[in-house]
Amino acid sequence: MFDSVIIGGGPAAMSAALNLKIRNKNFIILAGGDKVTGLSKAPNVENYLGINNVSGQELLSVFDKHLKEMEIEKKKEMAYNILNMGDYFMINAGNNFYDAKTIIIATGKAKNKMIEGEEEYLGKGVGYCATCDGPLYRNKVVTIVSENEEGEEEVKFLSEICSKVYYLPLYETDFSCRGNLTVLEGKPISVIGNGNKVTSLSTSEGNIDTDAVFFIRNVLPVNQLLEGLELEDGSIKVDRTMATSVSGVYACGDCTGKPFQIAKAVGEGNIAALSVVKYLDKNAEVEL
Amino acid sequence: MFDSVIIGGGPAAMSAALNLKIRNKNFIILAGGDKVTGLSKAPNVENYLGINNVSGQELLSVFDKHLKEMEIEKKKEMAYNILNMGDYFMINAGNNFYDAKTIIIATGKAKNKMIEGEEEYLGKGVGYCATCDGPLYRNKVVTIVSENEEGEEEVKFLSEICSKVYYLPLYETDFSCRGNLTVLEGKPISVIGNGNKVTSLSTSEGNIDTDAVFFIRNVLPVNQLLEGLELEDGSIKVDRTMATSVSGVYACGDCTGKPFQIAKAVGEGNIAALSVVKYLDKNAEVEL
Repeated sequence: MFDSVIIGGGPAAMSAALNLKIRNKNFIILAGGDKVTGLSKAPNVENYLGINNVSGQELLSVFDKHLKEMEIEKKKEMAYNILNMGDYFMINAGNNFYDAKTIIIATGKAKNKMIEGEEEYLGKGVGYCATCDGPLYRNKVVTIVSENEEGEEEVKFLSEICSKVYYLPLYETDFSCRGNLTVLEGKPISVIGNGNKVTSLSTSEGNIDTDAVFFIRNVLPVNQLLEGLELEDGSIKVDRTMATSVSGVYACGDCTGKPFQIAKAVGEGNIAALSVVKYLDKNAEVEL
Repeated sequence: MFDSVIIGGGPAAMSAALNLKIRNKNFIILAGGDKVTGLSKAPNVENYLGINNVSGQELLSVFDKHLKEMEIEKKKEMAYNILNMGDYFMINAGNNFYDAKTIIIATGKAKNKMIEGEEEYLGKGVGYCATCDGPLYRNKVVTIVSENEEGEEEVKFLSEICSKVYYLPLYETDFSCRGNLTVLEGKPISVIGNGNKVTSLSTSEGNIDTDAVFFIRNVLPVNQLLEGLELEDGSIKVDRTMATSVSGVYACGDCTGKPFQIAKAVGEGNIAALSVVKYLDKNAEVEL
């Protein structure tokens, strides 16, 4: 049982980690892939006090160095779902499950633009982790819509167990058709079903008959991460202690809303971690 | 007329300044004396992401260097009072007055421990700026209670125009009696008056008959800075945009409450400045 699991790997997550480490808490960081896209593409940052005139990539290296010096490691696993077990949480990260007393969500700019039908058919053919749910579609037709290369790994796995795999990459790739795999072009428009389960995916280039659609996104829609997590203007609703609507769950950084700034993210990570420490102390007292 | 006046000189103020500068706003920083006491005394800071294992003093030097590179200057003037003029603010900084469209308060950990009678006799013998109010006590008896060396400058000025000056330093000093000046020992306990005006100051070493008492503090009690500024648990009440209860006035850093941390202060300074920019843009639209 971890004291805390930090979900995300950007500046907010890193700042939270520093503070948990200093306070001797037992935690892990599930950072997902290395895709802190916004910052890593920034040509020049000059408003993070104390480190002037660096590229976003350089700043991230400086941040990574700090974590390394404090012996903090980021796991590249992606958290897909958090289950609220009452007095603790269970985090589903693909093949691994972790238990934790508290959660710090720092998943970056919240994307809530699900396509039509996506939410309705979630769990009825729509999924976010092919590795997790793929076996349900043995010998069936599946489609993967992916914002990044991770989708290619999922395709390889699914093409071994499914009768047909469609791949719709939303990024530039040379990944090509092979065996039972067809690589498509276009943009996804809506998930279509018969009320009970998915029957097809509508795209800008036409309809595809399919039993399942997996969306591999750079950021998971936050409202799918944890049931009961309240949003406000599409971001995770927090108070000034970074507490969310779910007791024991804190959020920080871009996922809590504007401004999308490094200093804000780092400051919120700091606050979230100290709030977690307070929460753990309080609950430890209750246990005595 | 300034777009904004930043009151305070610590990490929150500096972070706000960076962002106003980048956004081409016309502002000044009234930093008061060089007394960012908490941080400058920290032996080792390791939880400000990106700058590891430095003393508080070193970290402040790094911050100052960043400001210098951006050609941002801190004025050593102390703001004593802000007057809300409806569509702008007038800031009283001793001998100087400044007009501004917005205010960013970053005065550090809020001190609200006024002594007994202090609030009751404010303006009736109690003051915070001897240079400003001293002339009202020409040929009278005045007392200065000071947390720092600035009080000594005030003493020199008052001893020229008052009949008798008592000085009660609350810090270590060799400053000694001379002419009409008596240096006292002890701690101030209460301000005593006849209902209309101050008559004496009670201290741990006895009572002093006096017509006025000036308190020179490292931090001005925030509730004296601006009328109508709402507090919460002794700190300035802000929302997540760092807006206070007074439109056009934002606050950041330790003065908004716990945790008292550099990252939190820097993050809040960043948010406050961007909220000011938004506020100015909105009001500029109204003017068109």
